[in-house]
Order: sequence, then structure tokens, then C-alpha cells
Amino acid sequence: MITSTSNDKVKRLTQLQASSRARREAGLFVTEGIRIIREIPGDQIQEIYCSESFYKKNKDVVEALPVKPVLLSDAVFKKVADTKTPQGILAVACQSHYELEDILNKKKLTLLVMENLQNPGNLGTLLRTGEAADITGVILSRDSVDIYNPKVIRGSMGAFLRVPFVYTDDLPDTLQKLKEKGVKTFATHLDAKKNCYEIKYPEKMALLIGNEGNGLSDVITEFADHKILIPMAGKVESLNAAVAASVLIYEIYRQKLGF
Amino acid sequence: MITSTSNDKVKRLTQLQASSRARREAGLFVTEGIRIIREIPGDQIQEIYCSESFYKKNKDVVEALPVKPVLLSDAVFKKVADTKTPQGILAVACQSHYELEDILNKKKLTLLVMENLQNPGNLGTLLRTGEAADITGVILSRDSVDIYNPKVIRGSMGAFLRVPFVYTDDLPDTLQKLKEKGVKTFATHLDAKKNCYEIKYPEKMALLIGNEGNGLSDVITEFADHKILIPMAGKVESLNAAVAASVLIYEIYRQKLGF
Repeated sequence: MITSTSNDKVKRLTQLQASSRARREAGLFVTEGIRIIREIPGDQIQEIYCSESFYKKNKDVVEALPVKPVLLSDAVFKKVADTKTPQGILAVACQSHYELEDILNKKKLTLLVMENLQNPGNLGTLLRTGEAADITGVILSRDSVDIYNPKVIRGSMGAFLRVPFVYTDDLPDTLQKLKEKGVKTFATHLDAKKNCYEIKYPEKMALLIGNEGNGLSDVITEFADHKILIPMAGKVESLNAAVAASVLIYEIYRQKLGF
Repeated sequence: MITSTSNDKVKRLTQLQASSRARREAGLFVTEGIRIIREIPGDQIQEIYCSESFYKKNKDVVEALPVKPVLLSDAVFKKVADTKTPQGILAVACQSHYELEDILNKKKLTLLVMENLQNPGNLGTLLRTGEAADITGVILSRDSVDIYNPKVIRGSMGAFLRVPFVYTDDLPDTLQKLKEKGVKTFATHLDAKKNCYEIKYPEKMALLIGNEGNGLSDVITEFADHKILIPMAGKVESLNAAVAASVLIYEIYRQKLGF
């Protein structure tokens, strides 16, 4: 059992929790909780860490996992956990890699494209909402928050494992590829002439979602085939970013379901 | 200028920020930022507090407000502010009081009923979404979070000033009154036979929204005239509470707009 935070494995865990760069360079991520760990395909799991007391209480469950656990004292586990009241188990697993071509190689496409999305809670929520509303893939500009950020993982309720995604260094170039594949793009815009309920969404489409504070950049807005707005009564000037995107995602899904 | 945190006014402010009970007993609330303060009707504002540096930079703006400001040293202002990087101005204002009868005394009703909603961020978001989607009033069980909690106020983007609301000590009794007024109630339920898009929402309706972790209690679910569900693809088991309610609120609004 590891009882010191100066242990190399512990230092490595702390680094993987805190730094998206460390995660990217190692091609790994860390996730906490037995439920989500069970959802990770066995061959993706590299290491499992348990607190002493979690192991004692859940020995059978832990031993049934595909990788033998490393035990940490409760104090050390609390140090490496990202949550305030950790359950007592975490896994280090390999990041998934998808190619844009795989994501686009489908007859029907409902894509989310995120430009410079910053809030990990928002990305987690949008992955969760997106999976529930049958989104087929997510494209993120490189300056968006890391999908393997512990807060994204928690907020997504496992959707990060199931929704294919790619980061792109050149979003305009990627959008150009989408155009060539016949994907129609939609962006919310205050000057839009149509609202989101007046549109019949096509079989291949992408919803462009901008930064929480600044919205989409002019360059990316220019790429949009259609500008739409969400109708609003009252005096509020905008909706919460995750709410606005979720309302649109579900309107698209409603139409897809034929209601 | 007040330079000590042991000043009585400062102590009072801290109490009003922290305690819903103190706010309720005094019939007051505290809100930060010039934009929201300008939206409060002048006769509701009791006191205005400015940090020294905010006052220096914005003297004209502050002097144009309906109440003469009390100056606080920047250090003291930072202590009483609820935000991490305060703008430097806050107001103490009178709480609004609405009667259930006033809220129900309209030809068309779209109500939100919250049972034991706990997260101030969620309540703020739902007020903001609700105002944007033409909600006519909000009813909250007494054990729900205080609408004058600073985090609700911030999240609501001013909607707390404009959407009429009542707290009720006896939610079943209040729902009975709604029934007598011809208001149809809708609750999400996993066993529902219809989804939210298969319903034609009536002119007088209320959407019942439960606690974030536990949903609606059995007693309140029993009161619902209609049980509905939000269709979900994939493997996610639920949506984020604020997202789920927002999707429903906007579906109701879509129908109201005739799309």
C-alpha cells in the first residue's frame, strides 16, 4: 500500500488530474467512481487505484475489474482525487482517438462544433445532452477545454466514452471539409431572420456553438449556412450557454423523431 | 467612509448575504452590480454601498441612483461582497411579495412549480429560461432554495425581479387550488406513456419540477394530471436537471408561439 504522496505513482496521478497537457502527452485520462470505471472497455484501462477503506468494503467488486488495483492509504487517495468526497476508486485509462473521416462517414450526421468552449461543466452537460439527443459526433477547436478534464468527465455522465469527438487545429479548414461532405451548418446569431423552429433541419447538419462569453468568432459565423435565433420573451438578453445549446439540440432531435 | 468590518452596517450586510432567514425576517435582499441595481424600481432600494475606488471612477453614475451611497473602503467592500472579484457596488432592497391569487388571476397560465429545488444555480437558470419562454409565474415549496440567495440573483440575470413567485408551506394544498382554477399539471416520470412532444399543452398549465437528486416526491407526482418523459437516445440515464426543465419549458413555448 502506498502511504506517501511523494511516491512516483502518486505524483504522476496528481499531474494527470491537473494538466491537460500531461494527459495529452501520455494519451491517458483519470476517472473516479466504480460506475464509470465499469463502463470503460477493459483493454483501455491501464491502472486502478483504491483507497484502503474502499478496498476493504468492496473487495469482490474491485477484484472483478480487469486490472489488479494498487492500494493507497485513505489520506493519499484523498490527495489524488479530484472530488471533495471521493468514493475511493479511480482508474487511469487510454484516451480514445477518432478520425474526422470516421465521424463524417455516416449517412445521417448531427454534429456539435465547439469553438473555444471554456467551461468544463458546459462541455460535460452538452456531451450528456448530445448523447441523449442522438448527436453523432463532436468537433472541438484546439483552444476548447479538454474533454478529459475531470469536471467534463463527471458532468458528461459517461457520454465522453460514447460520443465520438475530434479536436482540430484549424477549425475553418475542418468546416470546409464538412461543407464538401454536404453538411449544413447552423449558428445562432442575434441578427438572424429565422428562429430555430422555422427551420427544417437536414439529414447532415452541424450546430456551431461558441465561447460562453463571446459567442462564435466572426470567421466561424461566416461559415454558417444558416443563422438562427431562439425566440425570447421578457427582458432577459440571453440564455445560459448550456441551456441555449440544449434547447437547439432537442429541437433538432424532436424533428428527427418526427414529432 | 466605513473602514472597519466591525461596523454595524457591515455586519448587517454580511448577515443578509449569508442567511435566507435574516433576509426573510427583514424583508430585504442584497444584490451586486450597477446593471441589476438600475433595474430595481427606485422605491424598493433602501441602501446603496460603494467601494471607494468604484465611487471615484463612477461618481456620476452612482450619484444618479435614487439613494445616496454609503462608502466602504475597498477591503471592507471585498469582505461583504458575495462575488470573488466584486464590481464595487451593491444595493439593499425590499423583497417583492406576490399573492397566489394574483399569479392565478390570468386567462393564460404557464407556471413552474418547484418542489424542494436546492441548487441556487439551477433556480437562477430556470428563472432566466422561464422569463425568456414567457412563464407567467413560479410556485416554490418552502423547503426550496431562497430566490433571494445571491447565487440565484446572479444566475437569473434580473429575472427574479420580473417573474412573479410565491413560496408555499403546503404544496399539496396549493396544487389543489391550481386544480380548482382549471390549471393542468405536468410532471416528468420514467414510467410515463407519452413523451413531451406528444402533448398539446393547454392554456392553463403548470410544470412540476422536483429536487435535483430525488425528483418529485410521490405525493406531488400523484397530483400531476399528466406524466410525460423527454425522449432519450444512447445510454445516458438522465439529463442535467436545469437542462431537462429548460427543454420542457421551451417545448411549451414553441407550441404557444404556434410553431
